[in-house]
Amino acid sequence: MSKGLPDLNKDFSGWYTQVVNKAGLADYGPVKGTMVIKPYGFQLWEHIKEIFDGMIKNTGHVNAYFPLFIPKSYLAKEAEHVEGFAKECAVVTHTRLKADSEKGVVVDPDSKLEEEIIVRPTSETIIWAMYKKWIQSYRDLPILINQWANVVRWEMRTRLFLRTSEFLWQEGHTAHETAKEAEQETLDILELYRQLAEDYLAIPVYTGIKTESEKFAGADTTYCIEAMMGDKRALQAGTSHNLGQNFAKAFDVTFQTKENKEEYVWATSWGVSTRLIGAVILTHGDAKGLRLPPKIAPIQLVIIPIVKNDDQRQEIKNYMEPLIAQLKDIEIRVHQDWSSNSPGFKFNEWEIKGVPVRMEIGPRDIVENQVVLARRDTGEKLFIDKEDFKENIIKLMNDIQSGLFEQAQNFRNKNTHSVTDYKSFQKIIKEGGFVRCGWDGEQSTEAKIKEQTAATIRCIPFDEKQEGLTCILTGEPAKHEVIFAKAY
Amino acid sequence: MSKGLPDLNKDFSGWYTQVVNKAGLADYGPVKGTMVIKPYGFQLWEHIKEIFDGMIKNTGHVNAYFPLFIPKSYLAKEAEHVEGFAKECAVVTHTRLKADSEKGVVVDPDSKLEEEIIVRPTSETIIWAMYKKWIQSYRDLPILINQWANVVRWEMRTRLFLRTSEFLWQEGHTAHETAKEAEQETLDILELYRQLAEDYLAIPVYTGIKTESEKFAGADTTYCIEAMMGDKRALQAGTSHNLGQNFAKAFDVTFQTKENKEEYVWATSWGVSTRLIGAVILTHGDAKGLRLPPKIAPIQLVIIPIVKNDDQRQEIKNYMEPLIAQLKDIEIRVHQDWSSNSPGFKFNEWEIKGVPVRMEIGPRDIVENQVVLARRDTGEKLFIDKEDFKENIIKLMNDIQSGLFEQAQNFRNKNTHSVTDYKSFQKIIKEGGFVRCGWDGEQSTEAKIKEQTAATIRCIPFDEKQEGLTCILTGEPAKHEVIFAKAY
Repeated sequence: MSKGLPDLNKDFSGWYTQVVNKAGLADYGPVKGTMVIKPYGFQLWEHIKEIFDGMIKNTGHVNAYFPLFIPKSYLAKEAEHVEGFAKECAVVTHTRLKADSEKGVVVDPDSKLEEEIIVRPTSETIIWAMYKKWIQSYRDLPILINQWANVVRWEMRTRLFLRTSEFLWQEGHTAHETAKEAEQETLDILELYRQLAEDYLAIPVYTGIKTESEKFAGADTTYCIEAMMGDKRALQAGTSHNLGQNFAKAFDVTFQTKENKEEYVWATSWGVSTRLIGAVILTHGDAKGLRLPPKIAPIQLVIIPIVKNDDQRQEIKNYMEPLIAQLKDIEIRVHQDWSSNSPGFKFNEWEIKGVPVRMEIGPRDIVENQVVLARRDTGEKLFIDKEDFKENIIKLMNDIQSGLFEQAQNFRNKNTHSVTDYKSFQKIIKEGGFVRCGWDGEQSTEAKIKEQTAATIRCIPFDEKQEGLTCILTGEPAKHEVIFAKAY
Repeated sequence: MSKGLPDLNKDFSGWYTQVVNKAGLADYGPVKGTMVIKPYGFQLWEHIKEIFDGMIKNTGHVNAYFPLFIPKSYLAKEAEHVEGFAKECAVVTHTRLKADSEKGVVVDPDSKLEEEIIVRPTSETIIWAMYKKWIQSYRDLPILINQWANVVRWEMRTRLFLRTSEFLWQEGHTAHETAKEAEQETLDILELYRQLAEDYLAIPVYTGIKTESEKFAGADTTYCIEAMMGDKRALQAGTSHNLGQNFAKAFDVTFQTKENKEEYVWATSWGVSTRLIGAVILTHGDAKGLRLPPKIAPIQLVIIPIVKNDDQRQEIKNYMEPLIAQLKDIEIRVHQDWSSNSPGFKFNEWEIKGVPVRMEIGPRDIVENQVVLARRDTGEKLFIDKEDFKENIIKLMNDIQSGLFEQAQNFRNKNTHSVTDYKSFQKIIKEGGFVRCGWDGEQSTEAKIKEQTAATIRCIPFDEKQEGLTCILTGEPAKHEVIFAKAY
């Protein structure tokens, strides 16, 4: 009954590719590494977007839109930033095509631009160039702007949702009077990311700080949420950066303080992307395909009528009508599958698409005055009295939402190990899992461990306990307790 | 009291630029012709988007996302299409930057792409390349997909919202079994556009067909909604294209019919863009700035407390509290302006921003148990008993919404003239207005009139009455009654 999906214990990567394909989530575009997000996949994004958009608006943020095109000279203004993005920039150099009698349609050489244009890989530079125009005094602060946009990072090795040349995301860019305020904003947003991941996507996350070598190019500090996928590898699911005064200095953005002084503005930026959809698949998927948390599922309940003839068809429709009305009352996203496919085919299809609850209704259920509900997360079948339908649906959706979270949390906790010797470290990294251990704080140590095991420091967790710890590689006193893992 | 806005009767263009700037709607980006949509402007777009997104979802459409990048060879597959867009294409040719000791950051010549990439000016080509993979049989049809996206058309002369190198829009791309079904879809969408314009943006529109020379590059037929702006010029506010089998043929997309035959798929595409924001400004604006229809206004009611000291401040807050609660009940978007600016300054500011209703509350109103409401559309001041507050607000919003529409409709009707002689035609076009007249159906006639008067055929209106008409230029029997005007 696994619809020809590869065994996820043996070929997790092949399983992922097939699920994305067979669930109708996404497809590759013609240009290397670009992604077509198909309607079913895009509905996941719409739900994620709506939820997070509500969260940031509730906390005083507003949306805006900044241009896709950044002059090359802007990108170059912040030294670390340009170094971080230089190798993955799509560059626009011309603005016209023309007909050529031999070669067909060619780029018109006469349309060459004086200054090349970069397709935004992220928007700090163009936004801070605009903030320079908008900020004069403390009265103009804070600026709490977000944008929902597409960005381009030319990637060599791509995976749908996880790493694509173009992806969709939100990027917040805020400007503040003080370092303290910027730091608070960075942390407040990280907490919203944690809520988004845990309370809506049902993905448990570790929150913490990135090391110097893993932080955002241009940031003072990068905070992150890190999740464990079904193959025990780590996935960075969201980052929130305290940019200090780096971009303000690069773009010369100063403001008049309340004390009538001139000071550089303090900045943050933060983003989550369509990568979150990959995280949902990789966290909750099982042998039968996707398993979607109800809060973001495009379809929360699918109805499969079991009919043999037209008489039954009408009878079932009549039986269903008040139930559908109740589902509407409680705003459940429902789909009725009246297609001519067999029930077995339909079960498979909606399982692979991860619909949280399947409702079967046949002539027998009418006699029994019941409905049959099947949970996608556990496979459990429930026979519910028709009168108790509404309450059961509400409860079921909550149970599935929390059940998926708990299952993922147990899995993660079971596969997160505190170790003190390098041999155990290597064994766990090889077999899969997160390691919590001491680190001496040296970039060279981090690099050596990466070279030897392919594991990276995912974060310095907020709840670190470094007292008494020694570095897992060097044996020196630990500067931090960190979480190591192989990552996507 | 016009805040230094240019006189809109003498310098409509200067007035427009100043309103966009002073109302905080948008700004130019650093790359020629690109646009930054500021938060207040972007909220307008969010409302328009939400409204139209609801309309298309109610009619069975779904959203998806297709890549920004199109291989040059794809764009070239449909001959008319590439000809239409060749002169305004942003072309990506490289994918890396590198440091150069002399020149700083330069484009890495080693990263040159084998095939150049076009930044989408519209997505027919890439979408039909995907549809080829998705469509095999009639069972796969119809496909009713829309996307909200940014597109790039390299423009020489740009105006914020009206014509920018990058803009935001929705583009629907549907695939059908029959010509009839595609035609119906094209017309159904046009009707949604009419509703969006008239019922929400309060902009009256003429609906009709574009002539051959004005239709979309690659379409069989283009339908449009055309509006009259405050300077009596026309603005194309939305287009819906019946693409026939042109793109199916260019991308070889066939399907197995119910009768087991192989046939090319029938297509439509349709779009409205951030240009609609320009249309709202140009239709409703007056000497004091913007006037926004309540249904799309980011702020529908602004409260200006008139206070002299802190005691009054608290008293007014107490008085306002139950009123604010009532506004929340009826989901009015409200803003309280407690800033330290003078009432006069605030009045000006919110007038230029076009907020439909201003509510003033001072100590005197508390004594009188009233509130003072000022209509932005008419300037009228209403003194409302506090008990009747809620009903009055609801009524007022409806009145302003319909009032703006009626005013615009009267203006348009007054300035739309049916004429039969070319002298009158020239006079009206010169002085400003729409002309309804006969046209012999010849492209050469259309071109001559454009050359002589700068007027173009905006559409062949659905309600045309060509019987008995002769061509305004040639005197030949009219093939159509058409609407001529100078256009944005």
